[in-house]
Amino acid sequence: MRSVMEVNEDSKVHGLIVQLPLDSINTINTERIINTVAPEKDVDGLTSINAGKLARGDLGDCFIPCTPNGCMELIKQTGETNTSDFRQGRAYQFCPCHFNSLFVHFSSCSDVTISRSCVPIPIECLAEEIGLFSDEVELYGRTKAKVQLKTIDRLQAQPDGKYVVVTGITPTPLGEGKSTTTIGLVQALGAHLKLNAFACVRQPSQGPTFGIKGGAAGGGYSQVIPMEEFNLHLTGDIHAITAANNLVAAAIDARMFHEATQSDKALFNRLVPLTGGQRKFSPVQINRLEKLGIKKTDPSTLTEEEITHFVRLDIDPESITWQRVLDTNDRFLRKITIGQSPTEKGFTRTAQFDITVASEIMAVLALTTSLADMKEKLAKMVVATSRSGQPVTTEDLGVCGALTVLMRDAIKPNLMQTLEGNPVFVHAGPFANIAHGNSSILADKIALKLVGPQGFVVTEAGFGADIGMEKFFNIKCRYSGLKPHVVVLVATVRALKMHGGGPTVTAGTPLPKEYIEENLALLEAGCSNMRKQVENAQLFGVPVVVAVNAFKTDTKAELDLICKLAKAAGAFDAVHCSHWADGGTGAVDLARAVQKAADLPSSFKFLYGIELPIVDKIRIIAQKIYGADDIELLPEAQHKVDLYSKQGFACLPICMAKTHLSLSHDAEKKGVPTGFVLPIRDIRASVGAGFLYPLVGTMPTIPGLPTRPCFYDIDLDTESGEVLGLF
Amino acid sequence: MRSVMEVNEDSKVHGLIVQLPLDSINTINTERIINTVAPEKDVDGLTSINAGKLARGDLGDCFIPCTPNGCMELIKQTGETNTSDFRQGRAYQFCPCHFNSLFVHFSSCSDVTISRSCVPIPIECLAEEIGLFSDEVELYGRTKAKVQLKTIDRLQAQPDGKYVVVTGITPTPLGEGKSTTTIGLVQALGAHLKLNAFACVRQPSQGPTFGIKGGAAGGGYSQVIPMEEFNLHLTGDIHAITAANNLVAAAIDARMFHEATQSDKALFNRLVPLTGGQRKFSPVQINRLEKLGIKKTDPSTLTEEEITHFVRLDIDPESITWQRVLDTNDRFLRKITIGQSPTEKGFTRTAQFDITVASEIMAVLALTTSLADMKEKLAKMVVATSRSGQPVTTEDLGVCGALTVLMRDAIKPNLMQTLEGNPVFVHAGPFANIAHGNSSILADKIALKLVGPQGFVVTEAGFGADIGMEKFFNIKCRYSGLKPHVVVLVATVRALKMHGGGPTVTAGTPLPKEYIEENLALLEAGCSNMRKQVENAQLFGVPVVVAVNAFKTDTKAELDLICKLAKAAGAFDAVHCSHWADGGTGAVDLARAVQKAADLPSSFKFLYGIELPIVDKIRIIAQKIYGADDIELLPEAQHKVDLYSKQGFACLPICMAKTHLSLSHDAEKKGVPTGFVLPIRDIRASVGAGFLYPLVGTMPTIPGLPTRPCFYDIDLDTESGEVLGLF
Repeated sequence: MRSVMEVNEDSKVHGLIVQLPLDSINTINTERIINTVAPEKDVDGLTSINAGKLARGDLGDCFIPCTPNGCMELIKQTGETNTSDFRQGRAYQFCPCHFNSLFVHFSSCSDVTISRSCVPIPIECLAEEIGLFSDEVELYGRTKAKVQLKTIDRLQAQPDGKYVVVTGITPTPLGEGKSTTTIGLVQALGAHLKLNAFACVRQPSQGPTFGIKGGAAGGGYSQVIPMEEFNLHLTGDIHAITAANNLVAAAIDARMFHEATQSDKALFNRLVPLTGGQRKFSPVQINRLEKLGIKKTDPSTLTEEEITHFVRLDIDPESITWQRVLDTNDRFLRKITIGQSPTEKGFTRTAQFDITVASEIMAVLALTTSLADMKEKLAKMVVATSRSGQPVTTEDLGVCGALTVLMRDAIKPNLMQTLEGNPVFVHAGPFANIAHGNSSILADKIALKLVGPQGFVVTEAGFGADIGMEKFFNIKCRYSGLKPHVVVLVATVRALKMHGGGPTVTAGTPLPKEYIEENLALLEAGCSNMRKQVENAQLFGVPVVVAVNAFKTDTKAELDLICKLAKAAGAFDAVHCSHWADGGTGAVDLARAVQKAADLPSSFKFLYGIELPIVDKIRIIAQKIYGADDIELLPEAQHKVDLYSKQGFACLPICMAKTHLSLSHDAEKKGVPTGFVLPIRDIRASVGAGFLYPLVGTMPTIPGLPTRPCFYDIDLDTESGEVLGLF
Repeated sequence: MRSVMEVNEDSKVHGLIVQLPLDSINTINTERIINTVAPEKDVDGLTSINAGKLARGDLGDCFIPCTPNGCMELIKQTGETNTSDFRQGRAYQFCPCHFNSLFVHFSSCSDVTISRSCVPIPIECLAEEIGLFSDEVELYGRTKAKVQLKTIDRLQAQPDGKYVVVTGITPTPLGEGKSTTTIGLVQALGAHLKLNAFACVRQPSQGPTFGIKGGAAGGGYSQVIPMEEFNLHLTGDIHAITAANNLVAAAIDARMFHEATQSDKALFNRLVPLTGGQRKFSPVQINRLEKLGIKKTDPSTLTEEEITHFVRLDIDPESITWQRVLDTNDRFLRKITIGQSPTEKGFTRTAQFDITVASEIMAVLALTTSLADMKEKLAKMVVATSRSGQPVTTEDLGVCGALTVLMRDAIKPNLMQTLEGNPVFVHAGPFANIAHGNSSILADKIALKLVGPQGFVVTEAGFGADIGMEKFFNIKCRYSGLKPHVVVLVATVRALKMHGGGPTVTAGTPLPKEYIEENLALLEAGCSNMRKQVENAQLFGVPVVVAVNAFKTDTKAELDLICKLAKAAGAFDAVHCSHWADGGTGAVDLARAVQKAADLPSSFKFLYGIELPIVDKIRIIAQKIYGADDIELLPEAQHKVDLYSKQGFACLPICMAKTHLSLSHDAEKKGVPTGFVLPIRDIRASVGAGFLYPLVGTMPTIPGLPTRPCFYDIDLDTESGEVLGLF
C-alpha cells in the first residue's frame, strides 16, 4: 500500500500496473490497493488487468511464489532507449525479498550455507522478468532453465549491451576470485546501480568438485545459486559431451577393427547394405564420396578402386588425436592399453582418457554460433590421419549426425541466478590451461540482447590474462564478432606477494605468515606481474579496470599500494572490492568504474592475423604476452606444423596449452619471467572447434584424487534433501 | 456447446465442472457455455470455478495448450471407490485430440515419424490430470518431468491398483515386442476401457541406440513419446550413474596408490588433517572406526595399531569387482590395462569397462524404496576384499555420501506419456541378462497409488520369463513387498517358429521364408517354449494371459494355434494383439482378458526362501525355471560361495547372469533344452543392491559397434530441430 503511495508521488513514474496473487482477486485488500492508485497513473484500467494478464497463463505461477503480497511493475517513460522490463524488475521487485533472506545469515558461514540461506526466485519468474517469453524457456526443475536459441532471432533488432570480460593476474593454486568478482560485479550493477546486468560463467567440471578444488559458483555473498545444482549435473551438458566424445572414440577403434578383419567387398556390403533388394548411400556417405572426388550416388556404379577408397579410412593408429573422456578425477586412466579382450583379436593400442571439459566437443559448444554451425563444426572434427596423410573426420566415420543429436539440448544456455537475483548464464568451458576455457558465445550473445544497450554482460575468462583473456580475444571474439568494452583484472594481495618472492602457496595447507601480515615490500615487488597483465590487456586496445579482491587479512596500505601501482601501469582505474563478504554492496565502486570505462571509445584489435604462418602466430603470443625471448619447436611440433600446413589448417587461431601458474612454461617462475625460450612439445588441431593448440611442456589432461578427496565431507541429509559439505 | 448438452442428458453424469481458457473469461462465448449447463449438474457454482481453480496457478498453463476450445471434467458418482480425477481425464479429455493427430498419419511410417505425428500433452498438464500436485512435479522441458518421492507419503492411505507384469517367451535377437505390448495394453486399458492405466518401463541404454538395436520406446502406434527424448539423455539418470560409478572406481585406484606410496602416519595426517590446530574425524570415518570395533571419536587417542587398521583398506587388487562404466558400445574397453602413465609409478593393473546400466548403482536405483534406503544401499556396496578377507565398501572409501548426492535427482521417477496420452514412468534398469533388468520399485509404487484400486499399473520385465520375470518376482517383488495380479506373456509366430527349428534369425538380415509363410508344423513344435514359460509364470501362483503379438505376415490359423496351445498349457487366456499397427484399439481384447484375470484370487509366492544356502537357490532356479538337470560350480564360483558365506552375504536373493536367447546357458539351444548341466563360472555380489549374481558362461558386459552402426542414419534437421533416423 505504502509503495503505491510512493509511486504516486514519484514523478519519474508515469504509469503503473498492479499484479496481485490470483487468489486475492475480489478481496477487500485488492480493492484497497487498487483504489490507492492515482487515476493519472492508472495505465489501462486496473480492474481489467488481472484477466488480461492471466491470459498469458504463467503469471499465476510466476508471481505468487516470489511476492506473496503481490508485486508491482513500473513503467518508466524516460528518454532512454527502452531496455525491456528487465530494469524495473531488477530495481523494484526481486532485490528486496533477496536481501531479506541474505542479511539474516550475515556471518562467516560456508558457501553452501549462504547459498541455501537465500530462497531462489522461481526460474520461470526470473526468465519472464528479463524479457524472455515462456515458449523460449525450458524448465529443468525449479531453479534451472534452458533458453532456446530462437531468442536471438526475436531480439535481432535490439542493440547489444556493454561487454565486460573478467580476468586476473597470474593466480596462486587457490585462485584469486574471478568467478566471485564476476558475480559480485553483476550484483552491484544490477541490484545497486539499477542497471540490467547479466553474468555469463562457465559450467564447472564435476571431477574437481569431488577432488580437491570444491565448487566454482563464486563464493561468500557473491554466488550463483543453488550452488549444489551449479556444481553437480546442472542440466547435463557435460554428460552429453562425454557421451558424444566417447561415441566418436568407440567408432574409431571399432572402424579400425572392422577394416582390419574384413575384405573391401565385405565392408562395402555392410556399409551399404541391401534393403528391399537395393543398396543406397546414406547422406553422410554421399558427403564422403564427394570428399573423395567420386561424383556418384548409385552404389552399383562404383569401381573396385572407388570402393576401396570409400570403405577404407585406413587410419594410422599412431596418428589418433581423439581421446576418450570422463568428468571424473581418475589418474589411472592417463595412460592405458585398450583392446586386450580376446574378442578384439589382439588389436590393442595405447590410449588415454582426458577430463571431459578438455574434449574438442566442449570447445565446439563454447565457440558455436548456431545449431547449423554446431553441426558443421562437429562434422569437421579431425580425429586422426590416414596412412596416406589425409585427415580423417567424424563425417568420414559417419557419426557426425549422431553427435549433433546428442548435443541438441546442450547448445541452449542454462539460466540460473545470483544470490541477489541477477540472471546468470552457465554454459560451457572451464580448464583454460588445456582448453580455451571460456563460456559460450551463444550465452554472451543472448545476454547482450536481453540487457539492452544500457545494460552490462559480464563474462569470465579462465585463469590469468595470459591464458584465458588472450584466448577470449584472439579465439572467442574472433568467432563471435563481439567487441569487448572493458577488461576487469582481478588482483589479490596474496598472489602479488607470491610473485614478489613469497613462500609457496599450496591448497589444503595454512598460509605462511608473509601472507597474513602486512608486507609492502614483498607486495610491491610482486606487482610486476599485475603490471605485465595490465599491459597484456592493453595490447588489445581495451580499457582495464583492476579489481583488488580484498581478504580480511589485507591492510588498507596494501590495498592502496596495489591501486596506485595499477593506475601507474596504465589501468583506467583500480578499486578495492569486498563482494565476497558484502555481496553486491562490496563491488559498487568497481561497478561505477566499469560503467565509466565502458563509455570510453573502444579500439579493440586482435594480437595477430590468422593468415600468418603457424610458427609466427605462436611466437607473437609467446613474445608479446608471455615475455619469452623466442619459441623452440621440438621435432613432433615441427612435424605437425608441416602436416597441418599441408592439410590446410594453418590459418586457424592458436590456443596455447600452458601452465596457468606462471607467465612462462615453468610453474615455478613467478612475477615476470624473462630470458626464456618457450618449448613447443607438440601441436594438436581442433579443426571443428577452429584452433590449433600447441602443447607447452607436459600437463596432465585428467586430474587425480588426493589422499583425502572433498567427497569425505559431502553427504545428503535424507530428511531435508539438503546437500552437506559442498564448498 | 453440444458436448455440454450431451452431458446434461447423460444420466451417468451427476455433476459437471467447466474449465475454460483463461483469456476467454468474461467473453460472450463463456457466458453461453456456462448458461448451457443444466442447474442440477452445476456442481459448485460455475462462476466461482475460475478464480477458485486459478488460485492453484498452473491451470492457466495447463489447459490452454492442450484444449484450445476449453475442456471439461466430468464427475461420475458411481458406486466405485473414488479413483482421483485420473479416470475422467483419461476418458474425456486427451484421447480425442491424440487420436486426431494419430489417425492422420495412419500408414506404415517409421516409429519416429509416428511419434512426431502426435502432439504430446504438456507434461505438467498430464501430471495434474493424474492427480499430482504441481509442487510434486519437476519439469524437464515440455515433455518430461520428475515426480518427487513425497507423493508416496501423501497417497499412503490410497489403496494400490492392479499390478501387471509383461514378460515374454524366449525371444529372437530382434525382440518380440514386450515394450510395445506394455504400451499398447496401457493405451487399451486407458483410452478404450476408460480405466486409470499407468505404464512403468525401463530407460533404454544409449549405447545400443547408436549401435545395432535402435530405440526402445515401443513401436508403431504403441510408443512412449517423444521417442527421441526417451531414447537419448532423458533426464540424465544414466549419466548420473556413470558419474557415481566412476567416482567409486577412481577412488579405489587412487586409494590403493596412496596406501602403496605413503606411511601410516602420512596417510593418517592426510586423512584426518589438522584444521584450526586440531584433527577431527568426518562422520563417514567414525562409521569406519565403528566397523573396525574402535570406539573412539578423538583422533589423538588412536593407538598405532588402530591407526594402521583405520588408514589401510589394504585392498587385494585381484579381488576388485567394481568396474568402470560408460553408456557407449565400446568393445575396446572390455579388457584394458590402467595406470601406465609415469605419474602412477608403475602401479598398473588389468581392468574393464561395463555398460553403465550393468552398474550396481543402476540396480540400487531400481530396487531402492526411499532416499534414506538408497543412501544405505550405496554405502553398503562392496567393491573388493582386503588382503585379510574383509569386504571393502564405498563407506570405507568415504565416497558413499557423494554417491547419494550424485543420485539425489535420479531417484525421482520420470513421467512421460504414450501416443494416446496415458502416463508412463520411465525409470531404471534394462539388460536383464547381465543385470536384474526391471524398472524401479519407486515408479511402480507411485503409479499404483495414482491409479487407485480400480486402476492398472503395467510394468515390464526384461527379456524372456526365465530371465526378467523370475528376477521380477524373486528380487524386485521381494524388496518391494508388492504382489502382482497378472502376468502377460508376449509370444510371436516368428520366435515360436524359431524354437520349432526354424533357421537362425539375425538382426539386419532379411527373414528366411519359413517366417513369412504359414507353417503350422514348425509353429506347433516351437510352442513348447511358450508352454514352459507359461509354466514358469505359474510357479509363482499368478494367472497368465498370453498376448500373441501379430505381424502382418502371420496367418489367422497360426495365431489361433498359438492361442489354443497357450490355453492348453494353462494360460488363463490367450488373445491376438495388433497394437503395433492399431494402437490401443489393437489391444482391447488383451486389456479385457487382463482385467478379468486381475479379479482372480492371487496366490503369489516366491520360488525359494532367501535363507537357503547359495547353491540351493541357484539350483532351484536352474532346475525349475531353466529345466537343467543340475548345476556345476567351477572353482572360482565355489571359492565365492565360501567367501560370501564367510562374509555373511549368503542370505541374498539370486540374480542369474545368463543368455536371454535360450532357456539354457547355450544361446543355440532353442525350444525347451533338456539334459544339460548349468555351469556357474563365477559369482559376484551386489551387496548394496541386495543380490548375488552367478555368471553362467561368458557374456560381454559392454556391447560393440557393428561395421555400420545405427548412427549412420541419425541426424538433426537444424531448421526444424527434428531428429532424423532414430527407429
